[in-house]
Amino acid sequence: MKKLAPIAVALSLTGPAAFAQEADPALARAAPALAAYDRKTLEGGLWQREGLSPRDRSVISVAALIAGGKTELQRKEFARALDNGVTSGELSGIITHLAFYAGWNHGIAAAQVAADLYEERGIAPDSLPGPDVELLPLNEEVEAARETSVQETYGATAQGVVDFTRNPMFLDLWQRPDLTPRDRSLVTVTSLVTNGQGVQVPFHLNRAMDNGLTQAEASEALTQLAFYANWPNVFGVIPVFQEVFASRGQ
Amino acid sequence: MKKLAPIAVALSLTGPAAFAQEADPALARAAPALAAYDRKTLEGGLWQREGLSPRDRSVISVAALIAGGKTELQRKEFARALDNGVTSGELSGIITHLAFYAGWNHGIAAAQVAADLYEERGIAPDSLPGPDVELLPLNEEVEAARETSVQETYGATAQGVVDFTRNPMFLDLWQRPDLTPRDRSLVTVTSLVTNGQGVQVPFHLNRAMDNGLTQAEASEALTQLAFYANWPNVFGVIPVFQEVFASRGQ
Amino acid sequence: MKKLAPIAVALSLTGPAAFAQEADPALARAAPALAAYDRKTLEGGLWQREGLSPRDRSVISVAALIAGGKTELQRKEFARALDNGVTSGELSGIITHLAFYAGWNHGIAAAQVAADLYEERGIAPDSLPGPDVELLPLNEEVEAARETSVQETYGATAQGVVDFTRNPMFLDLWQRPDLTPRDRSLVTVTSLVTNGQGVQVPFHLNRAMDNGLTQAEASEALTQLAFYANWPNVFGVIPVFQEVFASRGQ
Repeated sequence: MKKLAPIAVALSLTGPAAFAQEADPALARAAPALAAYDRKTLEGGLWQREGLSPRDRSVISVAALIAGGKTELQRKEFARALDNGVTSGELSGIITHLAFYAGWNHGIAAAQVAADLYEERGIAPDSLPGPDVELLPLNEEVEAARETSVQETYGATAQGVVDFTRNPMFLDLWQRPDLTPRDRSLVTVTSLVTNGQGVQVPFHLNRAMDNGLTQAEASEALTQLAFYANWPNVFGVIPVFQEVFASRGQ
Repeated sequence: MKKLAPIAVALSLTGPAAFAQEADPALARAAPALAAYDRKTLEGGLWQREGLSPRDRSVISVAALIAGGKTELQRKEFARALDNGVTSGELSGIITHLAFYAGWNHGIAAAQVAADLYEERGIAPDSLPGPDVELLPLNEEVEAARETSVQETYGATAQGVVDFTRNPMFLDLWQRPDLTPRDRSLVTVTSLVTNGQGVQVPFHLNRAMDNGLTQAEASEALTQLAFYANWPNVFGVIPVFQEVFASRGQ
Repeated sequence: MKKLAPIAVALSLTGPAAFAQEADPALARAAPALAAYDRKTLEGGLWQREGLSPRDRSVISVAALIAGGKTELQRKEFARALDNGVTSGELSGIITHLAFYAGWNHGIAAAQVAADLYEERGIAPDSLPGPDVELLPLNEEVEAARETSVQETYGATAQGVVDFTRNPMFLDLWQRPDLTPRDRSLVTVTSLVTNGQGVQVPFHLNRAMDNGLTQAEASEALTQLAFYANWPNVFGVIPVFQEVFASRGQ
């Protein structure tokens, strides 16, 4: 039986910055078939698709790698993100956000990778958003509802967690302007999918869509995550996305 | 809108060893806001709280980092643990225990970090508890019940797992004196929360509380784990803790 | 109370290549008890058991380490796999397969480890299976059923994922001859167990058994995974294996 036709993709060397990325030379030496998939399916396929801007693909990809603590591809994808229009302030904001959502260690690990890249590109620390920024306006009604619900459900068992969830997480971190509300929620959803935490996806996916993420973009985010998180976790979360889509009448 | 007031914490430079830890310089270069959270929320907030001794916070923190295979913060937290009164024998015992509970590779990875630290501090291998130690007395009735239950439930499908679970895990590892029964169970619970394995938490949380862990300490352990494991896994496991607390009439 | 008798194993220095592996020196320096377990329980116990060939144990072990992104033991276990009769083409195939099933980053990370090992052993890249190989014959009926089911269940929500799952995953990757169908399914099951994705185990465990994996081998695979993935995930998946065994009337 002959090899089946590869998926139809335009293998243009003049495509987005994405595809100009060099493959890891270790791939060719240890797994030539994977090196070919990397060129054809990932770079020449996934990254060339419609449905999500290269910039948004980069937001999702770097968030998945940070959330999963997967450092090997971070250098390459952080660089691609900057090339695709993610600002250094946004990347810094993603790292900060995920220190809370995916564990402090993953924030530290990503910061080490980013620090080297920023130095190489001459991005100075004082050009990045610091702790003292003008916060986005808080929707006090929504926050009060969230706080009441969390306090009632979890307060008796874990008051400390509830307290830190309010402040700094929802009163400070979530209101920081280094990420738009849409992107911050998209980053959160990415983290939850990556780490197999589907139960908490609906709240954050709804927030992302309330703030401008379209259903088509959310669907295509799952495609990106199949590669950058992993396939089984994505399959596991498709029904959750489906329910959210249905509940929004879309 | 102005930046909201930070959480009320005493930012004392004369606090516990915890807070004397230097921040990772990469944080300041790549994510200044995260560097500030690291000082204020983690070092100046979490580590200064009542409810759990600095020593117990260290037990939980190093166990979470080992269980999750998160090596970037291990060096810093292993050093802090020794400064906070965790003995080198206990840290060695935690690494050994988690090789079984979180995968052999995570034990090996942690041992590499600890080996360098021990050498630097002049902690000799023969000062650490070796394989030939006087075991703690076994409660044969409890062990017989455990063995019968596991054998009946799992034996037909996976006899090899059942056998190794008995020996060396329950007849040898669990009876080693390098960790107190309370700490060994706390380390196990930490591993389960870190890796999203909530189903097995009740058995081990009950054991920890039977051996002296208070409800207030267990609750505050969740606060520590929000940062050192991750927030969503902690939220996922709060209802499990709640049920255990309720079942104990506490 | 005296130390209990260790499990009965033949501690022969003339055993399989497995046991000739050197222990990590860091183990002896930081955790002498773990070093002893590593010799006695893992090398002298697990690897000496009947029920699964050393070659199959290596397939499972390297797949678990790659799937979990656990790089510390990869060098040692990749070398052992080659010594145990896993060919370099098969190891390369496992890495490629798991880039899809456990996330691209884990494929890249493993390729870096394998590239160094292959160079050291003089294994040339052009001796490895490349992208252009004669594919195994496709069972078009089975594939049509799979495609219809996946399309109907997931297509409306995530068409991109469905498309890549068909091609290249099922029409190309799964038909590659670098792994036998039995091994490819065993590797997939290993990845799912390692990452706590039990829901998707039945489909792939059935495929593995349809293609020659015996129940005894599947059972013993769980024993190997207790050490190379982790104990709690293995306990979590035993009931799933049990149901598959029962449904096959075995």
